[in-house]
Amino acid sequence: MTYNPLHLLMNPKSIAVAGASNDPQKMGTLQALSILKDGYPGQFYPLHPTEKTVLGHRAYASVHDLPEIPDLALLIVPTAFVIPLFEDFAKSGTKRAIIISAGFKEIGPEGRMLEERLQEIAKTYGVRFLGPNCMGIVNTALPLNLTIGKMDSRPGLLGMVSQSGTYVTQTLLYLHERGIRFSKAISCGNEANVDMVDALEYLGQDEQTKAIILYMEGIRNGRRFIEAAQQITPHKPVLAQYVGGSASGARAGQSHTGALAGPDFLYEGIFKQAGIIRCGSIEELYAHGWAQATQPPLRGRRLAVVTNSGGPGTAISHNADQGGMTVPRFSDALQAKIRELIPPHAASANPVDLTYHREMKVLSTVIPEMIMKSGEVDGLVLHGSVGSGFIKMVYDHIKELAGGMSEEEAARQMATDMTEAVKLPWKHGLPMMVSSFFGRRDDNTAQYMDGDIPVFDSPEKAARGMVSLLRHLEIRGRKPIVKSVLPEVIAEAAEIIKTALAAGQKALDEHQAKRLLALYGVPVTREEIVNSEEEAMEAAGRIGFPLAVKACSPGIMHKSGKGLIELNIQTTEALRIAFRSVRTAAGGKIPSVNNNLRFLVQEMVAGSREFVAGMTRFPGFGPCVLFGLGGIFAEALKDTTFRAAPFGSIEAAEMLDDIRAKALLGEFRGMPAVDIPTLASILQTVGNIAVLHPEIAEIDLNPIILSGAAPIVADALFVLAK
Amino acid sequence: MTYNPLHLLMNPKSIAVAGASNDPQKMGTLQALSILKDGYPGQFYPLHPTEKTVLGHRAYASVHDLPEIPDLALLIVPTAFVIPLFEDFAKSGTKRAIIISAGFKEIGPEGRMLEERLQEIAKTYGVRFLGPNCMGIVNTALPLNLTIGKMDSRPGLLGMVSQSGTYVTQTLLYLHERGIRFSKAISCGNEANVDMVDALEYLGQDEQTKAIILYMEGIRNGRRFIEAAQQITPHKPVLAQYVGGSASGARAGQSHTGALAGPDFLYEGIFKQAGIIRCGSIEELYAHGWAQATQPPLRGRRLAVVTNSGGPGTAISHNADQGGMTVPRFSDALQAKIRELIPPHAASANPVDLTYHREMKVLSTVIPEMIMKSGEVDGLVLHGSVGSGFIKMVYDHIKELAGGMSEEEAARQMATDMTEAVKLPWKHGLPMMVSSFFGRRDDNTAQYMDGDIPVFDSPEKAARGMVSLLRHLEIRGRKPIVKSVLPEVIAEAAEIIKTALAAGQKALDEHQAKRLLALYGVPVTREEIVNSEEEAMEAAGRIGFPLAVKACSPGIMHKSGKGLIELNIQTTEALRIAFRSVRTAAGGKIPSVNNNLRFLVQEMVAGSREFVAGMTRFPGFGPCVLFGLGGIFAEALKDTTFRAAPFGSIEAAEMLDDIRAKALLGEFRGMPAVDIPTLASILQTVGNIAVLHPEIAEIDLNPIILSGAAPIVADALFVLAK
Repeated sequence: MTYNPLHLLMNPKSIAVAGASNDPQKMGTLQALSILKDGYPGQFYPLHPTEKTVLGHRAYASVHDLPEIPDLALLIVPTAFVIPLFEDFAKSGTKRAIIISAGFKEIGPEGRMLEERLQEIAKTYGVRFLGPNCMGIVNTALPLNLTIGKMDSRPGLLGMVSQSGTYVTQTLLYLHERGIRFSKAISCGNEANVDMVDALEYLGQDEQTKAIILYMEGIRNGRRFIEAAQQITPHKPVLAQYVGGSASGARAGQSHTGALAGPDFLYEGIFKQAGIIRCGSIEELYAHGWAQATQPPLRGRRLAVVTNSGGPGTAISHNADQGGMTVPRFSDALQAKIRELIPPHAASANPVDLTYHREMKVLSTVIPEMIMKSGEVDGLVLHGSVGSGFIKMVYDHIKELAGGMSEEEAARQMATDMTEAVKLPWKHGLPMMVSSFFGRRDDNTAQYMDGDIPVFDSPEKAARGMVSLLRHLEIRGRKPIVKSVLPEVIAEAAEIIKTALAAGQKALDEHQAKRLLALYGVPVTREEIVNSEEEAMEAAGRIGFPLAVKACSPGIMHKSGKGLIELNIQTTEALRIAFRSVRTAAGGKIPSVNNNLRFLVQEMVAGSREFVAGMTRFPGFGPCVLFGLGGIFAEALKDTTFRAAPFGSIEAAEMLDDIRAKALLGEFRGMPAVDIPTLASILQTVGNIAVLHPEIAEIDLNPIILSGAAPIVADALFVLAK
Repeated sequence: MTYNPLHLLMNPKSIAVAGASNDPQKMGTLQALSILKDGYPGQFYPLHPTEKTVLGHRAYASVHDLPEIPDLALLIVPTAFVIPLFEDFAKSGTKRAIIISAGFKEIGPEGRMLEERLQEIAKTYGVRFLGPNCMGIVNTALPLNLTIGKMDSRPGLLGMVSQSGTYVTQTLLYLHERGIRFSKAISCGNEANVDMVDALEYLGQDEQTKAIILYMEGIRNGRRFIEAAQQITPHKPVLAQYVGGSASGARAGQSHTGALAGPDFLYEGIFKQAGIIRCGSIEELYAHGWAQATQPPLRGRRLAVVTNSGGPGTAISHNADQGGMTVPRFSDALQAKIRELIPPHAASANPVDLTYHREMKVLSTVIPEMIMKSGEVDGLVLHGSVGSGFIKMVYDHIKELAGGMSEEEAARQMATDMTEAVKLPWKHGLPMMVSSFFGRRDDNTAQYMDGDIPVFDSPEKAARGMVSLLRHLEIRGRKPIVKSVLPEVIAEAAEIIKTALAAGQKALDEHQAKRLLALYGVPVTREEIVNSEEEAMEAAGRIGFPLAVKACSPGIMHKSGKGLIELNIQTTEALRIAFRSVRTAAGGKIPSVNNNLRFLVQEMVAGSREFVAGMTRFPGFGPCVLFGLGGIFAEALKDTTFRAAPFGSIEAAEMLDDIRAKALLGEFRGMPAVDIPTLASILQTVGNIAVLHPEIAEIDLNPIILSGAAPIVADALFVLAK
């Protein structure tokens, strides 16, 4: 366990609250009530300027009047009072604070100044604080509830960090109805001091927390975030929803917590790099997180489907299949055993479909256990275990026939003891998900929820919940991420950049770029710089045909379509013509710096498979490396993936697996599979170069041609920072 | 209104029920109770072998005892009794039946025989029936409920056809909780007589039904399905969930209703062709269907987002953006008006974020109406309108402070009159969706539900509901589908096929294939058949360089990688070498039929953009045409789309828009935009050829090269049916 500011913040022995009163309409009062009513075992000290008691507790007029230095200060006061009060706490020795009050960075420049003042005070006095502009925390183990809503009384297993306070407060009833319980939840607000990464690391260490979910609108320190997640994700699932990646999403987030948003495609790659499972909605985030937190880990792809109805069985199978699972046909032996329990024409192959109206215990317990014991599957999804829900659906119709039996009594007669059913996953070490259209008002469904079996309100969702477990199986199967070791800066490379900058170049010319790449070990085309037709002929003699001739100047960013490049030159005669043609085309058109126009004579790499690599710097993440499909289709297909640099060989190799066209990297139409270590090492090196040489703003290696198995960089652009 | 067997079946004046008794545990009894309790105004005649009365109504021992010929017979009896009973009804003159009983096609060959017997009886006596193996129907207008569950008492707007009975019975409570109400629902079971298409057409004509949803596991008559949907979808939204397209999904469906499943990618194209909006889950199907059924149509892409919380606002914006909508910044004038009503630092630009604790009417009515009136948006998503739900979340904490006020009283004090709020969409002609974490137990949320405003239990879902309306805006904007007129069979084309079949060919050779294409007007490469080097030279003189030489034989299905093709031949010398090389390669290797090896001398089409077209016959759909990205990447990228043939020029042109690489069809890197009418016409013609010449099993035009703007078929394979 390493030091984390949240250990004390989440587990204070005493709390002082500023902003609570005896008026239940005030948010501060609601939060104080949550402390008092939800079982907090420590000391509670309300601060109030005039009241003698608040919520039955003696109130203190100022920080100096408190009988002890509280572990935690909770501030829910108007913005203007925050700084003096915070300073009072800091000076008096309180080391942790949660600032609920808003009106800081999220409102613009004036707010930002106030927030900086908070940060100064914290630094001066060694205080760590959460917020401002947050909604508090929940720690169900202590217990401590600092939100405005009532917390579930049973400690939970799911840890949450949220950049929106709503998702740890307004959803408490929603979660209760679905049987989902937090271990700890942290609304991190503007993250002026304690940030999302601190919270992630804290939950990573927390034994009560079995899975972690993150609601994200942006991240400030991407590198720390990735490294923290990489430590956690191999053994504890981390799931995230990211909504900052669209134009309007980013604008909304900006005015919300002032979060620094990046494009959606970047986060797609970052989450893969970090081992984080991405969710598409808050519903999935909660539900899949809960499935991961409660169930034994999935150990394979084989799914059993047990239902009382064909439609849901088909839908579960379809969705499992789409997510990469299989629904294998059961062995004859297993089917024979199942068939003893089901109607003659009911399906036993998998899905098992008991059809309408069977003894619930057969559906809920006997058949699932039979299947789990068989060793033929790795997990099970169940639909149709219903008790009182069915009665509630038909009671109005049958009450007269039922001879005065009350709805409750009728439901009681339908009741099934689910004690054994809810133990199955742990008894057999296999995850189970349940689908029910009835929710908590059905007693079977409620027993599942209370027994920590994830319940979904449609069959597809239950299947997708299981697929989420498959994603973590894949993450557990990743090769261990080794922190990459940066190479030394190569003096000649630094010199190339320095010279170019001194000459006022906005970019390296192609030859300089490739020289720099070659210095770091990246395979590039054999080529020579020439200044005349004769030199071109001599170079051709050394390199050999076929050849390409290109104009070469830092002023040329893109060559195609301008006559500045001639490819596939087969003979000396053709070379002469090509050289003259390029020279003529270049003559007038190039906005060259210092008129330093030269020409490149270059080997033609034979190969029809082309890829691209690149580097862009993103706020919050620094240099990020792109890999994608190249060639003329690249632009049309946008088949790319990103990682934050620097990264090691494992992460680089994983990038190759991300693109839709990855089949091109294997054996393909008689062409050999790519040399993966070399291609991965190009990507890794692009990242390293970006880290070692911050003067480089952008890199574009396009195309990287596969010559047989060997990737060779055929063109390169390095844009320099202004 | 055209004839439809469901008019009478859904609106009978009298119903005879076989299988109901006085035992509430029997399914038949539950269904009879639904007739009696849910307000059916017609005559009800129970049939029972022994009982004198059933559910208080006089029972009849046989069909012959009935006092009148009932409009509808409902059969819920053991399989063995179905046929004699059905025959009795048919003979006595009943013209409609619903057969709930299972044990037919879905169980295998014996069941299939029984089902055929039902079909014969129906044909003989002119009876139309629904089922067998179905769960009944709901008609909330009559009203008539033939399912086992209690029907919502208010007539609804959403029509459903389902190949799973579960989705019109087990979900009735689920739907009630969400405010979703059927107009009519039809469980179509095995579709032995009345099928899904009949039901779709019926709901298409039904005035009560404002949107139609389909749960599908497979379709038997794809052509009829597409044409029926094309008639309906321009004015009434049709949404579908299809789950038969994966291996395990198809197996599950087979044993369920014996449905004929096709691959998922095929249905993807078929739904586009039909104008049907595809949904990914039963939840989406219901919810998006309800949104379409209740709301004014969306007329543009501009969305307003109004919330009391930043997180949901950001999530709504993100999801709207992902779905193709925009969240435009409001005008200064509108923002100024909004700012008068919200706290100083709350966001007014769009999303509007009122932040915590505002007067509910401002959030629910005043600001939404202000925005709707402005003309700056086309629809609105609202999150955070909460009343009693909030009290329920905090009541346990505040009850003492509230001085003995009951939860109900506290809730009453929070109550907001939503009368005006729920009228806004119709008042201003703009659709509105609501997101609420609280469900029906919150009075605001319940008022939305009861006011036919779609409510979603997470912000993302509300945004996606609005995006579903955008999909129908796009479908309304389709050019009118004109039924394609098939050309005449061209005698020479028929002769080519006949000759090939007579010669025992399994495929046409390339030249025959291209000749056939050319006869129907498809642009193909200029080429000549040659049998010797001299003939090749002569042909070259006529066609001109550059050229290709290929071996040509019906025994050659694929040429690349075998030395059977030489491309880019520039000179007579090179042609000579190439010809000899191909002849040598072909000599030993070709498993040619009748040794009819010949050679093709062919123009080289210059162009780097390559596409493919093809035709495969799928059960249930007949010939289906593929269009996709070609070239060496095609196989790796699988960027294709399908349509069922025959189809017209509008449908063909829409295919071009389906592929991810569609940017390649526009102006691209200095190349002109493709000649769309010609390319579309190639696709249409491939479909027509398949329809006119059923002896053709498969077609593969690969590649179709863009020579400038002009698509030219450079290679073609026609496989003949065995």
